[in-house]
Amino acid sequence: MTGRPDVELNPTAGYRLVLTTAVTGGPGTLGLVAAAVHDTGGELRGINATAGMSTPGAAGFELAIDARDVAHQNELVVAIRAVDGIEVLSSEDRVFAIHQGGKVRVQSALPLRTRDDLSMAYTPGVARVCRAIADDPERAYELTIKNNTVAVLSNGTAVLGLGDIGPAGAMPVMEGKAMLFREFAGIDAFPLCVNAPTADALVDVATAIAPTFGGINLEDVAAPVCFEAEARMKDALDIPVFHDDQHGTAVVTLAALINAARVVGKDIRDLRVAFLGAGAAGVACAKLMLSAGVGDVVGVDRLGILHSSRAEGMTPEKTWFAVEGNESNLQGGIEDALRGADVFVGLSGPNLVKPEWVAEMANDAIVFAMANPVPEIMPELMPDNVAVVATGRSDYPNQINNVLVFPGFFRGLLDVRAHKVTDEMKLAASRALAAMVSDAELDATHIITSPFDPRVVPAVAAAVASSIA
Amino acid sequence: MTGRPDVELNPTAGYRLVLTTAVTGGPGTLGLVAAAVHDTGGELRGINATAGMSTPGAAGFELAIDARDVAHQNELVVAIRAVDGIEVLSSEDRVFAIHQGGKVRVQSALPLRTRDDLSMAYTPGVARVCRAIADDPERAYELTIKNNTVAVLSNGTAVLGLGDIGPAGAMPVMEGKAMLFREFAGIDAFPLCVNAPTADALVDVATAIAPTFGGINLEDVAAPVCFEAEARMKDALDIPVFHDDQHGTAVVTLAALINAARVVGKDIRDLRVAFLGAGAAGVACAKLMLSAGVGDVVGVDRLGILHSSRAEGMTPEKTWFAVEGNESNLQGGIEDALRGADVFVGLSGPNLVKPEWVAEMANDAIVFAMANPVPEIMPELMPDNVAVVATGRSDYPNQINNVLVFPGFFRGLLDVRAHKVTDEMKLAASRALAAMVSDAELDATHIITSPFDPRVVPAVAAAVASSIA
Repeated sequence: MTGRPDVELNPTAGYRLVLTTAVTGGPGTLGLVAAAVHDTGGELRGINATAGMSTPGAAGFELAIDARDVAHQNELVVAIRAVDGIEVLSSEDRVFAIHQGGKVRVQSALPLRTRDDLSMAYTPGVARVCRAIADDPERAYELTIKNNTVAVLSNGTAVLGLGDIGPAGAMPVMEGKAMLFREFAGIDAFPLCVNAPTADALVDVATAIAPTFGGINLEDVAAPVCFEAEARMKDALDIPVFHDDQHGTAVVTLAALINAARVVGKDIRDLRVAFLGAGAAGVACAKLMLSAGVGDVVGVDRLGILHSSRAEGMTPEKTWFAVEGNESNLQGGIEDALRGADVFVGLSGPNLVKPEWVAEMANDAIVFAMANPVPEIMPELMPDNVAVVATGRSDYPNQINNVLVFPGFFRGLLDVRAHKVTDEMKLAASRALAAMVSDAELDATHIITSPFDPRVVPAVAAAVASSIA
Repeated sequence: MTGRPDVELNPTAGYRLVLTTAVTGGPGTLGLVAAAVHDTGGELRGINATAGMSTPGAAGFELAIDARDVAHQNELVVAIRAVDGIEVLSSEDRVFAIHQGGKVRVQSALPLRTRDDLSMAYTPGVARVCRAIADDPERAYELTIKNNTVAVLSNGTAVLGLGDIGPAGAMPVMEGKAMLFREFAGIDAFPLCVNAPTADALVDVATAIAPTFGGINLEDVAAPVCFEAEARMKDALDIPVFHDDQHGTAVVTLAALINAARVVGKDIRDLRVAFLGAGAAGVACAKLMLSAGVGDVVGVDRLGILHSSRAEGMTPEKTWFAVEGNESNLQGGIEDALRGADVFVGLSGPNLVKPEWVAEMANDAIVFAMANPVPEIMPELMPDNVAVVATGRSDYPNQINNVLVFPGFFRGLLDVRAHKVTDEMKLAASRALAAMVSDAELDATHIITSPFDPRVVPAVAAAVASSIA
């Protein structure tokens, strides 16, 4: 965990506070409360009357207030308690409240109310269905859940910005992802967090469970295990495997880049892109960009630019950056990589990039500062040569969000019973996503559409499906 | 697969035929159809008008008819086509129709319609929930699906009577089981059919997936792998593991035996039980019976009675039968085991027991002929010394059905966050199930209640929960 950033965060529903209150003061009391919330930097999201006050003369209200963090939640409670005429009866951290009992459910697709229902869905009827699949395994796609079911598989070794917190701690992310699959793409996704820290163990689990699923979404697996595990799964399994941290990020980032280039009127073949962060996502983004024809990619990690004479701290993926990218054999730090670059792609940590370095980029520079929740450089700090800014955050324009990719991507894979994920599918998905922003809509603050745009999933799915080999 | 038994089976919903027809004949036509179905040995289960006939003067009807098997389905279609005034437009095998797309769905427990919903259920809000679990893993029971979620895990090596048909072929059974967990006990059960033919592989999978689940229902795993796998999982995992083919069968069979003994007025301590079938279920039943105080158990397999001087075809489980059971050191075949026995428990195959052998059993004999779908001996063939008969079939009295056990058993395990399954739990569950039949209700054709009896799951769950160590 990094320390508190020096840039103040905005209040978010991720720190929503819900207070049950009794108002005994006059009609102006709620106004005073709203002022107190505002003065304390919170954001009032709802005031709703509640039923049944036990105190005579008191009116019950539930207040929903977004805070910046837990300390800020506490400040807000103190500020509201200080208002005359309102009593805070209880306070709830809404995020923890909605997580009680977990976020997905397994339901029956059929009724099971009579002996006949049992005879058809279970024994003895089911035996014939089993036999039909044993005789022709392809029928599993027709007669079982396989054709619409994805495993969201994680070993919990690289969870969000939290690092290696293990499988149990990773479950809320995988459950959330399963919800996204269901709500955005109608896919049955089951969260599987596994004790499998090594590539061997992860490949073994994936190989074992493959008969049940139509695809595997690999998630939050640390590098370099994620590279080896995914590559070996691709060889071993006859269902598609997609490491979202790599490829989902790569697809949406390329889509954003295609449109940012449209905004500044540059050809992507002429772009030099400087990457800060040469982990799983960075390498995948850079590879997909080169496949799409981008001019050059330069990778930078903690030790500086990845170049062909560097020996320290290299991995196969970092060596890829040095060999396939960095055509001018740049050396030095991120400031050297940025000098004259057209694009910055940050997949690293908070506040690592200074405005004066960005000022040395080319004219009409494109900055994708995607570290979450605090970007490599805040959008407010951009020098004048920057034309387009995107982040991973929902409270700034141009949110680069994997949610734009994986639901539609798997929808397409499942629709055509794909056995492998290919680069052609990823490129097609990027182009389809980019094409969702029309020339009329396109500008520097609108290079990518919203995850709630209902056209996204069908368009990405169609692009993937039509790219099948 | 065994050949067609010489005993005729009854029509079942497991072979339901649904015909779409156009009736052009007079009002008596449907009566002629009903007669044709009856004469052909089918069972008419429904006649329903359908909308929109394209032929003028024709009335559309959908007919639901239960058959005995596929050949019988075809005979029925031929017989109905031969009736004047009705045209069969299409015919559907209902069991295959309801299996299209599989039988369970993964749904979201929360709405996901706005950016705020995303911020709470996914990033950034979810990170705090992950961190809370990483700091205190016990909170996974509160903040994830773990506390209500069971894996229905199978390697497909001993599926129903079909044998080793592999994981894909086993899925319809596991999906059906997941439905039963949901509908009877409100449990989220996910079917996992795995490539894991060996005990090592199965234990590895279970160990890997354990963080996600509150329990594992092991299913349709062949002996002896099932014994080793379950024993090692019990040692390795901190969640309960229950091989239903063994223990579900044992619990319900003991419950039936307790009540059958009540009917005939014998003390279970005086009973000698002859088992045909010394596989996973037989050994588990015999062990639980001895734990409950039953007098003696004698195991018989294909090679005859299991006794202490027999060497051929022994396994650790069969040796258990020879050492812990068979007090009189009986030798010979099943007919020798049956001579003078109080109880027969069949967990073997169709028509393996002759009436004249059963006639040599003690007075007021108890016969549990549980091979499915064709019992070791049909109830119609019982000699006069038999007082109580039970089978695994729903079309005879006294169906001994695991569905009476596993939903409530896991409900109890999950309710108290049990880490292990114990013999005390199984005995308590058997006694609770037996106690559901009151003295007033109890008779030779009513020794066990129905799976649709709403008292079953709460009673079994309470018995298991109160037996936790």
